[in-house]
Amino acid sequence: MPAFEVSEYHQRIARTKERMQQHGIELLFISQPANMNYLTGYDAWSFYVHQCVLVSLDAEEPVWIGRGMDGNGARLTTFLAAENIYEWPDHYVHSAEHHPVETMVEVIKARGWDHKRIGVEMDQFYFTHRVFRELEKGLPHAQFVDADTLVNRVRLIKSDKEIEFMRCAGKIARCVMDAAVENIAVGARECDAAAAIAHAEYSGTEEYGGDYPAIVPLMMAGEATKTPHLTWTDKRYQRDEAVLLELAGVYKRYHCPIARTMFLGSNPPQIMRDTAKVVIEGLQETLAFMRPGITAEQLEERWRKAIAHSTIVKESRLGYSIGVNYPPDWGEQTVSLRPGDKTELAPNMTLHLIPGIWYDDVGFEIDASVRVTEDGIEHLFEYPLDIIMK
Amino acid sequence: MPAFEVSEYHQRIARTKERMQQHGIELLFISQPANMNYLTGYDAWSFYVHQCVLVSLDAEEPVWIGRGMDGNGARLTTFLAAENIYEWPDHYVHSAEHHPVETMVEVIKARGWDHKRIGVEMDQFYFTHRVFRELEKGLPHAQFVDADTLVNRVRLIKSDKEIEFMRCAGKIARCVMDAAVENIAVGARECDAAAAIAHAEYSGTEEYGGDYPAIVPLMMAGEATKTPHLTWTDKRYQRDEAVLLELAGVYKRYHCPIARTMFLGSNPPQIMRDTAKVVIEGLQETLAFMRPGITAEQLEERWRKAIAHSTIVKESRLGYSIGVNYPPDWGEQTVSLRPGDKTELAPNMTLHLIPGIWYDDVGFEIDASVRVTEDGIEHLFEYPLDIIMK
Repeated sequence: MPAFEVSEYHQRIARTKERMQQHGIELLFISQPANMNYLTGYDAWSFYVHQCVLVSLDAEEPVWIGRGMDGNGARLTTFLAAENIYEWPDHYVHSAEHHPVETMVEVIKARGWDHKRIGVEMDQFYFTHRVFRELEKGLPHAQFVDADTLVNRVRLIKSDKEIEFMRCAGKIARCVMDAAVENIAVGARECDAAAAIAHAEYSGTEEYGGDYPAIVPLMMAGEATKTPHLTWTDKRYQRDEAVLLELAGVYKRYHCPIARTMFLGSNPPQIMRDTAKVVIEGLQETLAFMRPGITAEQLEERWRKAIAHSTIVKESRLGYSIGVNYPPDWGEQTVSLRPGDKTELAPNMTLHLIPGIWYDDVGFEIDASVRVTEDGIEHLFEYPLDIIMK
Repeated sequence: MPAFEVSEYHQRIARTKERMQQHGIELLFISQPANMNYLTGYDAWSFYVHQCVLVSLDAEEPVWIGRGMDGNGARLTTFLAAENIYEWPDHYVHSAEHHPVETMVEVIKARGWDHKRIGVEMDQFYFTHRVFRELEKGLPHAQFVDADTLVNRVRLIKSDKEIEFMRCAGKIARCVMDAAVENIAVGARECDAAAAIAHAEYSGTEEYGGDYPAIVPLMMAGEATKTPHLTWTDKRYQRDEAVLLELAGVYKRYHCPIARTMFLGSNPPQIMRDTAKVVIEGLQETLAFMRPGITAEQLEERWRKAIAHSTIVKESRLGYSIGVNYPPDWGEQTVSLRPGDKTELAPNMTLHLIPGIWYDDVGFEIDASVRVTEDGIEHLFEYPLDIIMK
């Protein structure tokens, strides 16, 4: 059964259709798994083959098209009527002769949508160049326009029910970081700590079962702390080693990231202490300033001012929008906290602020995952804002 | 440090260049993470932004291009010389004004590769339609040809060292299935069983630390056994419920999948018993026939004959090639065991045979992950071929 009431999906679809009309799009071809889930409830690890959800202005319900063996998955996890679920034959998988888009083209023709202005998600992973070519070949009368992040932008402001899910994810996030702190220790293998972290992520709390994050535990130790996206090895942690942790709690595909920095000893390098002090104070000042009405770039500017007294330079964005997601990313690819992003913050946006700093010899990461409220922010989890010494 | 000796990467690059020459490709633009890893050692969860590896016939070493903050990751995990690692600026991430391909285009021009015949992986996830458009716009003198699965095909026959890694993955796979069998029980929550499975996957064995699989645990229970790609819920297992398990052991990104079917009771439905008997005997007969020189379709034909006495129809492919991989798929997208695939089996190919059957009310899965030897096969793990009753 889908995670939300059917009425909530209908509201999402209505808002998607509004945005389609604003952009002159009559048919929307969606291949991004989070967008498919958002509009229909579909939840399966089937995105390693081509699948899509179609939203047409002239049809009430979306259409799901996927691999034959996944049809039952669509019947189980979406609210869609049987006649809106289509399957492509299994011999189209990784075939030199056939491509799954052939079935999608057939459905589009059968529904009379082949002369439409069709929006496609041109820069979303899972929408390969080949998919576009096959669509273009099969639908010579259609006109294709870029609808990249169209649905992502509909996802930006969460419903109250979605906020509940984000809060559950926040509760799980705390347990996940606790598991990390408990299991990362001098002499322990990195892979065993990763195992404990994954256990906490998937298990969740007694009340709320966990789900898999769109990004596996990122946990750089020692020399690897100079970069943010490594996973783990089977090495043992050393005394006086720093460990950067970027983890998440997930509830029914809704993500609450959590990041902290550990130091396995009592005397972190001076550069790490200094960086931590500046970054933590800067983050706190930024969070205190955060409220509806200010723009993403104004928020980032405040951060920049708050750390201007130091030598720290943070070239990468300060944060981004979060919510429902699938691998490879838990970011929504919409709001980025950086110069140039003029999105106005609004109640029930949820954002991940992660002022990570990576020098050529060491790094420091800390974060906050928050909801924008009517007049400020709500933290999705509380966790000490400091280097975790052990 | 990369997982293999530098000489092994050079051999892989040489074989890639041979294949490029056969296809008249002068420059290869690789965006598939497993192919990037295979040719350079690069190993990071950074594939949620655009990155690539370039192989040029006129350059000894490949070139890596990725996000600025991931440059150190490339310096840590690849064997590439500093001058072959390029970074794009962080404000290109999910930007409306800039695209990471701009930097890739600049590098290609600076290297004098912009008039070349360039192979791109047209149907690989991570190669979006937008990436192609940006390449085409930035390189008007280049000629683009499809090089989809070109490197995947180089990966097909494993080196002895890769086979060692596959055997380690097989050892981990056994532990993973043991963890599943131990933790799936009437009254346990699905998410807690998933947690135990992930723990076993990431932890590995005492000798070999585990790695994250390209697919999270697929573990359909009860009604969900009629479809293969669902994950888990927070429901509790019921008496007389069947559970389909498709899991994996992974060692340094090399995958050994393992699939079994559990029944939480002593009396599985007759249809499941009957299906299991036919499928297991059919699989055994197929494995006994498997050896170098026969083709993928001949092997599948043998399977088809072996079950012809029953009413079972298996429409989907019987199996596929496995090895190094990243989400969303552990399959290599090359050999598929099904009619029409005329690839001849050869020593040191590694394959996953998974005769999964999903009826409208119940399913059955069992598998074998094997290496093709000089005269037959080697099992990557031994695990009882039967319904696991508990």
